[in-house]
Amino acid sequence: MSDKRVYLYDSTLRDGAQTQGVDFSAIDKAAIARELDSIGIDYVEGGWPGANPTDDAFFADRPKMGRGKFCAFGMTRRAGRSAENDPGLQAVVGAGADVVTLVGKTWDFQCAVALGVDLDENVRMIGDSIAHAKGRVGEAMFDAEHFFDGYKENPEYALKCVRAAYEAGARWVVLCDTNGGTLPHEVTAIVSEVVKHVPGSHLGIHCHNDTENAVANSLAAVLAGVRQIQGTLNGLGERCGNANLISLIPTLMLKMGFETGVSPNDLTRLVQVSRLLDERLNRAPLRNAAYVGEAAFAHKGGLHVSAVEKDPKCYEHIRPELVGNHRRILVSDQAGRSNFLARFREIGLDVDPTDPKVARLIDEVKTREFGGYAYDGAEASFELLARMVLGDVPDYYRLSSFRVIDERRWNAQGALITLSEATVKVTLNDGPHMAVAEGNGPVNALDAALRKVLVPVYPQLADLRLVDYKVRILTPEAATAAVTRVLIESGDSKGNTWTTVGVSTNVIDASYNALRDSITYKLYRAGVEA
Amino acid sequence: MSDKRVYLYDSTLRDGAQTQGVDFSAIDKAAIARELDSIGIDYVEGGWPGANPTDDAFFADRPKMGRGKFCAFGMTRRAGRSAENDPGLQAVVGAGADVVTLVGKTWDFQCAVALGVDLDENVRMIGDSIAHAKGRVGEAMFDAEHFFDGYKENPEYALKCVRAAYEAGARWVVLCDTNGGTLPHEVTAIVSEVVKHVPGSHLGIHCHNDTENAVANSLAAVLAGVRQIQGTLNGLGERCGNANLISLIPTLMLKMGFETGVSPNDLTRLVQVSRLLDERLNRAPLRNAAYVGEAAFAHKGGLHVSAVEKDPKCYEHIRPELVGNHRRILVSDQAGRSNFLARFREIGLDVDPTDPKVARLIDEVKTREFGGYAYDGAEASFELLARMVLGDVPDYYRLSSFRVIDERRWNAQGALITLSEATVKVTLNDGPHMAVAEGNGPVNALDAALRKVLVPVYPQLADLRLVDYKVRILTPEAATAAVTRVLIESGDSKGNTWTTVGVSTNVIDASYNALRDSITYKLYRAGVEA
Repeated sequence: MSDKRVYLYDSTLRDGAQTQGVDFSAIDKAAIARELDSIGIDYVEGGWPGANPTDDAFFADRPKMGRGKFCAFGMTRRAGRSAENDPGLQAVVGAGADVVTLVGKTWDFQCAVALGVDLDENVRMIGDSIAHAKGRVGEAMFDAEHFFDGYKENPEYALKCVRAAYEAGARWVVLCDTNGGTLPHEVTAIVSEVVKHVPGSHLGIHCHNDTENAVANSLAAVLAGVRQIQGTLNGLGERCGNANLISLIPTLMLKMGFETGVSPNDLTRLVQVSRLLDERLNRAPLRNAAYVGEAAFAHKGGLHVSAVEKDPKCYEHIRPELVGNHRRILVSDQAGRSNFLARFREIGLDVDPTDPKVARLIDEVKTREFGGYAYDGAEASFELLARMVLGDVPDYYRLSSFRVIDERRWNAQGALITLSEATVKVTLNDGPHMAVAEGNGPVNALDAALRKVLVPVYPQLADLRLVDYKVRILTPEAATAAVTRVLIESGDSKGNTWTTVGVSTNVIDASYNALRDSITYKLYRAGVEA
Repeated sequence: MSDKRVYLYDSTLRDGAQTQGVDFSAIDKAAIARELDSIGIDYVEGGWPGANPTDDAFFADRPKMGRGKFCAFGMTRRAGRSAENDPGLQAVVGAGADVVTLVGKTWDFQCAVALGVDLDENVRMIGDSIAHAKGRVGEAMFDAEHFFDGYKENPEYALKCVRAAYEAGARWVVLCDTNGGTLPHEVTAIVSEVVKHVPGSHLGIHCHNDTENAVANSLAAVLAGVRQIQGTLNGLGERCGNANLISLIPTLMLKMGFETGVSPNDLTRLVQVSRLLDERLNRAPLRNAAYVGEAAFAHKGGLHVSAVEKDPKCYEHIRPELVGNHRRILVSDQAGRSNFLARFREIGLDVDPTDPKVARLIDEVKTREFGGYAYDGAEASFELLARMVLGDVPDYYRLSSFRVIDERRWNAQGALITLSEATVKVTLNDGPHMAVAEGNGPVNALDAALRKVLVPVYPQLADLRLVDYKVRILTPEAATAAVTRVLIESGDSKGNTWTTVGVSTNVIDASYNALRDSITYKLYRAGVEA
């Protein structure tokens, strides 16, 4: 095993779930775990079995891993009980994970104040629990809670705790800066001592960002000998967040010569993985995020732009393509134009740059983006708009009107029910059609009514299904009178997916706009004539 | 002068203004400069006189400083001209600032590629310009652009450049990591060499956050001897931003024993200063910002909460009051009993922990969260639920039914319009009421109709307004049939704000649930009887 191999441990689904406002469903968790596994994260922590219904549901149907190991998190046994007789610990070791990670105290003050546990009994709790978990599951690791605070006050005791875990068979002993208050130079000094007691090849680091140093602290620990890093995607986590794996991975690989389970090819998916989490959380991605932010390689006019065009190394610390990002040149109209032409080439649209329609299309996109459209996340709508301006797309149907009624009332049985019913009037080649349908929400009803009219004429729509539906309010100052942007991701039975966008002050109207683009795109791609 | 005195240099108004989407007016600049001065920042950089009309207007009426010095930024003279005959340099030294900061090249590659300037002439440009600016203004400093990249490739030349600035009389020679790609251990190594050539008491550091290490790099430089730090408020700046002074100041003062111009009393205004910038930029403050974020001292996990209640040092790295922040206890799926009890105390709810109603409430919250509710972002709904289970909240009105109609059609003028109209049937003490209203969206219409009935009876609702409205789809696999969670933030004319949540398969229904909680909360808080 190379000394340059650093193992990555992701805690997005457990420590990340501690973030204010974050509330993963079991389905969210499965999707994120698959993504983490697919880019080569060594350990994926799923949650704390037995702690809440979501984690129980998630572990009951745990994701299959291809490259990484799936971890269950829990606590060392309680004082005065055997590991075998501790129901909390049993729920964790019996959860069907590949690895068990147990957290325990290493700060004498914490034992006394938070737990009221005898210091020697705490050491036995660590050793017993790790040995038991290793015996039951095969691989166990120890998260040494408050290790740095503990070491600063009582180094002997903190070291005794981590040695107990190591000697009981822990594959990894992870030094946690639980309160996030430790600084990089302190990490360097303390880890340099710890490696004299536990080999660096068995040590990990777990940092929090309370002083904006979680990434630097993790790097300092690795330079002092540690070979495992715990962190989260986008630095998600309680308070100020955990160490950001999205920043750490490229720094380790591209700047420090370390190897991880992530290949250079996986690394080009970094932007995508970072965005996936934001989408699951319905959050706008952080524009200025290191490596993956939209602005990370953006250059405002003037000196920087001309220098970057001469040699990118003038103002770029790495090649953006290495992490799946790309350079953005802001402001100049010329730059805008070349961006558009590059996007046209991307969607296979062969246009003459001098065609006056191109200028018209650029104006149209800029006007729409100013009004709230966002074509970056909705390639299908962008392609349709481009092809429409260029006169390519048939008019498959014309909507004369729709009406959606949402009714909340008490039914005859005394139950409160809400019904949605949509009526559409559509003109096809053979004349006007009308249909009505119910749904369990206004957009669902509208979708159902449209299909009643369209599927008999366009059977290609029979397998169209809505994969995801997102709503974002764009000018929250105006609250319910704000502009709403709806993104719809659609799919078909062949596994194709495409995303469309709609904008309106009315959420139903915005949803319809996105729905219409999705239907039109499906028919256009299938080569259907109107 | 104590060796522990670190000088702070703020570049929010110049480097911060390079941020994508940031466009300060002269009035914004004046307000921010006053704020920086008032908390004791040593140097406030106003901008680049002569570079754009905003900076010209700002310098023409420059802010008066109480404690700090006001700086003009510019570039060293051009090649082949004297400093006296360079119009760009003359605009900077003649702008009426207290200090002039001049940037120049120190990377041989940059001189060759970006400028096409002879290496020796570049050294003369630095020395001439600094000497001239010092003569004209009294204090001059040199920003050594790309110093770290330059040093890595040609240390002799990079050192020659900074020595030229120092020998020409620069008060400070500032080592800039312009591309942001340098790591903390490299900063330590390189600065340790530079201090052999220029005394640390005359060296500064200027970092960018492209690897998420700008704060750590600044600290590493200070530990290696540098005594000035350049940064920006909230880490504003081009690409991934500059070093964040808001994070650096408390770390230097509270954790490293350094003195700055900021007093411990000024430090308690840190949250306020950070928010001021966000308000000027009309941005939502970053929740998880170190020290000043709303979540920086928020506790969600059950174990953490019970420990923090015993002794805050268990899970807080500093006392939040030192930086003007405060502790927050969150309630959620993750939460244990102690979070609930702590939250009850915070909202002034005096309950007996052994009351069986408490267990029922905890079950109710957990069940609702499993069904999609999220109470950690919706304190008002949590409080209402708690008070309802405990039997405290009057029934202000009963909604018998509502109906919302969204119609999209062509009007008589041939324009496509979408109308939303809501009808509500509400029972009050005096019997049934009915009202209808239009809005520019279904929720807006529903809100308007409800007010028509309620405001005459409850005038306390007249100043209720919706501040923000967020929608999240929770089980996107089911797409339009998914469960929808709506968060509504409301406010009143006294500046109070509160957040409520609603969940349903129907977005209109979910919105109504959140709206109802908001109305009820406002009336309950106003002490209104039903």
